[in-house]
Amino acid sequence: MLISCVVYNGDREQADIPLEEIPAYLHAPDNFVWVALQDASEDELRAMQKQFGLHELAVEDVFNEVQRPKVEEYDEHLFVYLQVPAYHGEEVHIGRISIFVGPNFVLSVRQNCEQALLGVRARAEREPHLLKYGSVYVMYALSDAVVDRFFPVVDILDDELEKLEIAMFHNQETRKNMERFYDVKYKVNVLRHALLPLADGFSKLYGGRVPALVDGAENYFRDVHDHIMLLNSQLDAMRDTIATAIQVNLSLITIDHGEVNKKLAAWGAILVVTTIFTGIWGMNFTYMPELHWRFGYPMALLIMAGCAIYLYRRFKKADWL
Amino acid sequence: MLISCVVYNGDREQADIPLEEIPAYLHAPDNFVWVALQDASEDELRAMQKQFGLHELAVEDVFNEVQRPKVEEYDEHLFVYLQVPAYHGEEVHIGRISIFVGPNFVLSVRQNCEQALLGVRARAEREPHLLKYGSVYVMYALSDAVVDRFFPVVDILDDELEKLEIAMFHNQETRKNMERFYDVKYKVNVLRHALLPLADGFSKLYGGRVPALVDGAENYFRDVHDHIMLLNSQLDAMRDTIATAIQVNLSLITIDHGEVNKKLAAWGAILVVTTIFTGIWGMNFTYMPELHWRFGYPMALLIMAGCAIYLYRRFKKADWL
Amino acid sequence: MLISCVVYNGDREQADIPLEEIPAYLHAPDNFVWVALQDASEDELRAMQKQFGLHELAVEDVFNEVQRPKVEEYDEHLFVYLQVPAYHGEEVHIGRISIFVGPNFVLSVRQNCEQALLGVRARAEREPHLLKYGSVYVMYALSDAVVDRFFPVVDILDDELEKLEIAMFHNQETRKNMERFYDVKYKVNVLRHALLPLADGFSKLYGGRVPALVDGAENYFRDVHDHIMLLNSQLDAMRDTIATAIQVNLSLITIDHGEVNKKLAAWGAILVVTTIFTGIWGMNFTYMPELHWRFGYPMALLIMAGCAIYLYRRFKKADWL
Amino acid sequence: MLISCVVYNGDREQADIPLEEIPAYLHAPDNFVWVALQDASEDELRAMQKQFGLHELAVEDVFNEVQRPKVEEYDEHLFVYLQVPAYHGEEVHIGRISIFVGPNFVLSVRQNCEQALLGVRARAEREPHLLKYGSVYVMYALSDAVVDRFFPVVDILDDELEKLEIAMFHNQETRKNMERFYDVKYKVNVLRHALLPLADGFSKLYGGRVPALVDGAENYFRDVHDHIMLLNSQLDAMRDTIATAIQVNLSLITIDHGEVNKKLAAWGAILVVTTIFTGIWGMNFTYMPELHWRFGYPMALLIMAGCAIYLYRRFKKADWL
Amino acid sequence: MLISCVVYNGDREQADIPLEEIPAYLHAPDNFVWVALQDASEDELRAMQKQFGLHELAVEDVFNEVQRPKVEEYDEHLFVYLQVPAYHGEEVHIGRISIFVGPNFVLSVRQNCEQALLGVRARAEREPHLLKYGSVYVMYALSDAVVDRFFPVVDILDDELEKLEIAMFHNQETRKNMERFYDVKYKVNVLRHALLPLADGFSKLYGGRVPALVDGAENYFRDVHDHIMLLNSQLDAMRDTIATAIQVNLSLITIDHGEVNKKLAAWGAILVVTTIFTGIWGMNFTYMPELHWRFGYPMALLIMAGCAIYLYRRFKKADWL
Repeated sequence: MLISCVVYNGDREQADIPLEEIPAYLHAPDNFVWVALQDASEDELRAMQKQFGLHELAVEDVFNEVQRPKVEEYDEHLFVYLQVPAYHGEEVHIGRISIFVGPNFVLSVRQNCEQALLGVRARAEREPHLLKYGSVYVMYALSDAVVDRFFPVVDILDDELEKLEIAMFHNQETRKNMERFYDVKYKVNVLRHALLPLADGFSKLYGGRVPALVDGAENYFRDVHDHIMLLNSQLDAMRDTIATAIQVNLSLITIDHGEVNKKLAAWGAILVVTTIFTGIWGMNFTYMPELHWRFGYPMALLIMAGCAIYLYRRFKKADWL
Repeated sequence: MLISCVVYNGDREQADIPLEEIPAYLHAPDNFVWVALQDASEDELRAMQKQFGLHELAVEDVFNEVQRPKVEEYDEHLFVYLQVPAYHGEEVHIGRISIFVGPNFVLSVRQNCEQALLGVRARAEREPHLLKYGSVYVMYALSDAVVDRFFPVVDILDDELEKLEIAMFHNQETRKNMERFYDVKYKVNVLRHALLPLADGFSKLYGGRVPALVDGAENYFRDVHDHIMLLNSQLDAMRDTIATAIQVNLSLITIDHGEVNKKLAAWGAILVVTTIFTGIWGMNFTYMPELHWRFGYPMALLIMAGCAIYLYRRFKKADWL
Repeated sequence: MLISCVVYNGDREQADIPLEEIPAYLHAPDNFVWVALQDASEDELRAMQKQFGLHELAVEDVFNEVQRPKVEEYDEHLFVYLQVPAYHGEEVHIGRISIFVGPNFVLSVRQNCEQALLGVRARAEREPHLLKYGSVYVMYALSDAVVDRFFPVVDILDDELEKLEIAMFHNQETRKNMERFYDVKYKVNVLRHALLPLADGFSKLYGGRVPALVDGAENYFRDVHDHIMLLNSQLDAMRDTIATAIQVNLSLITIDHGEVNKKLAAWGAILVVTTIFTGIWGMNFTYMPELHWRFGYPMALLIMAGCAIYLYRRFKKADWL
Repeated sequence: MLISCVVYNGDREQADIPLEEIPAYLHAPDNFVWVALQDASEDELRAMQKQFGLHELAVEDVFNEVQRPKVEEYDEHLFVYLQVPAYHGEEVHIGRISIFVGPNFVLSVRQNCEQALLGVRARAEREPHLLKYGSVYVMYALSDAVVDRFFPVVDILDDELEKLEIAMFHNQETRKNMERFYDVKYKVNVLRHALLPLADGFSKLYGGRVPALVDGAENYFRDVHDHIMLLNSQLDAMRDTIATAIQVNLSLITIDHGEVNKKLAAWGAILVVTTIFTGIWGMNFTYMPELHWRFGYPMALLIMAGCAIYLYRRFKKADWL
Repeated sequence: MLISCVVYNGDREQADIPLEEIPAYLHAPDNFVWVALQDASEDELRAMQKQFGLHELAVEDVFNEVQRPKVEEYDEHLFVYLQVPAYHGEEVHIGRISIFVGPNFVLSVRQNCEQALLGVRARAEREPHLLKYGSVYVMYALSDAVVDRFFPVVDILDDELEKLEIAMFHNQETRKNMERFYDVKYKVNVLRHALLPLADGFSKLYGGRVPALVDGAENYFRDVHDHIMLLNSQLDAMRDTIATAIQVNLSLITIDHGEVNKKLAAWGAILVVTTIFTGIWGMNFTYMPELHWRFGYPMALLIMAGCAIYLYRRFKKADWL
């Protein structure tokens, strides 16, 4: 589905044009065309492939649902494939954006991805001086927008993690907590797999030999790379935290067991000692003088209670109760 | 055992020929011959070695059962050794495919591998424009087909893992679950060892200096490399998940023990308190007035039941029961 | 907020000047100007951007609160972004310092950072021979001062860790201890994320190709890099220690449980044996001669006490009590 | 102790010669001499050092018992130091082989190593065409033979590991099993330390700049390197397996404890309930009608047995027994 | 404190000279001077700095107590900073040695380090042919001597570790054992941090571009590097062993608990069964014929003993006792 088709002319003004007029603009030296598709059909994409001379392998990647994010250089164009995360209720949803960039065109294809990226078009209007970098600026702005979408998702996970830590140190809902740690870890991994390959990909767009298209705009791609590295280091910190938390949690649970055990043992001791006394005075010996005392029974109860209280206090002092 | 011997001529048409006619076709500049063997005998392979001038070390590798997958450049030809996974019931079965590629020939040897790769031949007919890359195209198509065989196997393991996670969080069959986690981990490792060395091998076929044969077809090998990297990252995620799961599992088991312990302790307390009462009224003191009351016995039973019910409720409230 | 604006002239003397006079000094070949801002407003920074021709991306980084430390080379200037740790009570507080360095200017912006860095100005007076390196010397001195701020923070953490280890081996406050290990680990990670990217950044300022500005002063940046590496290796050692400590802690807790269990079991045995005797002599058999002995009861008590003492001694010897 | 001294002449025939005649053969362009020593004395080696101009540091390494395997290039010769594993009963024994290779000589010194390597001499006769590579062929053949000695040792360890896994999942001899896992891990580490440095060493003998001596024979050293990598990946897989197994084992033991606990608790409950009934009917209330019933006693026994059976069944159903 | 000041002249003879005469010898082309200081005062070192033109940063490093070992190239000289371990009772003590090497001088400064390194001077006399490498030989000999000091320390730790392993598998002093594992781990880390940076430092003195001073002596520094790598691999093996041991230890403790539990449970069962019998015969039913049998009591005791013995045997057989 076509979202927009814009031409940026030599003076860097922009105008919407119908798809059919693209060829008319392609050959003017300073022009470039940006075609934005959403959930493109194979036909639409094939038409674009013919129009812009896109490489077969890159076009196939657009339709491939399981894919690693990548920045690839082909003879005629660059191909960038990005994953965009979004929180849908409790789930992290991953959309896909493919960008083809040639000297005079940009083709962006959004798939399974609800978020409009038109903010980029507005930005292009706000920063006309950046349009001097040509079509590659649109790719930069799209990549930058996509990478920025990761920050709020990472923040939500970070908050979740903080809540889990607090619950952990208060031994609340230990079982449920484990499940949620596991879930956060899973989501962190999903985000990492969407980001890690990009760090490598964008690092090829600045420093050393860069594709001719990118020439002069390296600082902008270094900036995107830097954001990716920041996200990566945040995710790494979270992974590390979760790993430690899982181990600490086991220790806390074990400590808790130990405390429960001591409490039980203390009560057990108190009760068993009482039982021994009842056992002794329940014996059937003929000559047990205290059994015939007038106040033998209350004395017995007092002795039992006394022992119990004495033990209770000792255990209390030893912090077992 | 010979499966097929095909010649691709200058116009890229293909024709089956008998082995003996190979030399006749080898010297035409645009021709190349593809010989496909299955479970080749040493004699068959030696004949091919003489025919195509294959390197001794590469030929020996074909028969070596324990081998790392590899992509090796020899003076006269490339040698690719791949492992192909397949699910046989519960087991992952590993077949082997060796490919020799020279400027005018391809020799593929399938060993211990049930899956026919003739899909490749059909593909060559479907994509005649790719045959312009010559013999190396067949190697690409074979490699691509082999790597694609990994995806369904990885998917089955992923499903298995998901089932194990659900069982884990429901504390079902903990012991059996551990065994299956262990088994999945083993299979993941088998696949990783079949893939990891290939990532390295195929990365030498694009970017930087590539063997002359591959020249021009780098994008295709980058695509294969990309698939390998995707599989690797999926397998790494699974390894990570399993490692976490094993730790989480231990915590869950320990939590479970704690819950069982509390339950037992609570019941124990209820029973022991009851025992103390029976002990007290079982004592043989002469002066125990309540023993002689008319309703002393039912009162005793009521007191015991009352204490038991009271304790039961307290434990229930504290979530021990 | 402007802190100071100093000009260093050809003879390397320094003088405070008002901001408006900067342009007058910028074009003298041997002069350079150092402008120091604190918690700069956007307006202040934009004015400086215009004055010194700072790159848009670098200026944006100054205001970005979540950022990785970095050393970046732009066409016209270097940009260094550092994080400064400080202990506020129990918390590690992270301030930020951004430094822009061109051939004839230094702009330092301190944000959210209480510590004055004017020590650097005094140092410049003490080491006038180093001013021969020009503006880059100020950047070096600032970086050096920032990195030196890490040492006392790391030392405090190290002391804390040592205290926790001692507490751990004495099984004191196990639960609280875990929480504090976790907290130290968290702080170590915060420091690492403030340092790790710098190791990479400063390594680009010595050895191999260095930015023209830095030329001749490489040894000084190698020294800063060396301090960063020292801090990193200290933090790594602490991470490793904490990881081991958490595992050892679990073992110690488990050992402790085992000891408690043995103690309980021993007491349990002593009590239960006593109970058996009272049970036996509580039976109602008609013919139990000892029940009618004159000293049957004291004998019974002696036997019970004897058994208890015997068991107590055995358990004592086996180190269960 | 001299084992053999062989000269290979221009036509690649070989002949035993006495040590004294070596100089006569050294200067013929196509000749090379192979001297094989076993448990060489310092004197023997010093004589060889003078004869062939061996570097002092390399000669010292021969006598150094604790040493990392290595492949070193000196100005005048290559030096290869290898470790050879062998199973002596339950122990892995490590022998040492040092090889010096110059353009016209090979000196091999076997130390603390029972296995004869004369297979290499026979191989040289079987593969005379490979002798065209000169003295370096002998080094290759020796290295190849040494690396091949690792395979059976690794296989034995692999079998041992498999047996331990089976025992682990059947909870047999848990304590002994741990000890054997630990032992296998130790042996795996010994082998790894004998192999890892070689991977690095042999990788310098093919690809990129190789020592002049090796020129042309790179494929053979790549093959050795490949075997080393295969062994390494097998050992890595074993390490990984053992690490997982140790963790899984702890879980299995903990699960086992849980099962034992449940079983005990169930029996405990059955017994304690019985005890309560005996306690109740052991009380001394005057008015306890059932005590005087004709069949009160058998009824009591039946009730107790009934309760016990009922509980037994419930626990059985809940899988606690 | 000056230890010695030696001049090595063109014929490589050596002679002690007073400090004041150094300048006289510095300009002879073949001479070099070795000044050895111990616990140098700042004044002494400043004098040397002036004499030999040492770089400010290197001189500061000498007095810096917390420092990473390093090998640094300055314009005028090399600077090597080493840490020397020594066992003082149970503690590992770390001394420091700084070496400055220029074309015609060596300055060594020993700090906090009791071990004399004069062995190096004697070695120089024993190996006059090595003095052809000039001042750098002294640096080599000092470095070699320092690295050799690590071996006995590592050996002591290795022995300690072996003793701990044996104790671990015999479940002796589990708590103390943990503390000692922790202590060994700590010492291993101290040694690693003293060695790891050196591996990197010395690798820059051979292979690839080396400092001019070192030219020709690369093999000697490769040898030192090799010793460092050997030590590193030993320390890594120990780290790995300790990590495994800590995990195995937890399993062993848990297994031990399980065994104790089973033993307790078995005794518990025996005692409780006995209690039930005494409970039954302690009931007050009117019609309990066996109570009135002549040998009811001994029969009861026999039954109880019989049950106890039967259970004892069953538990013995099941290996619970």
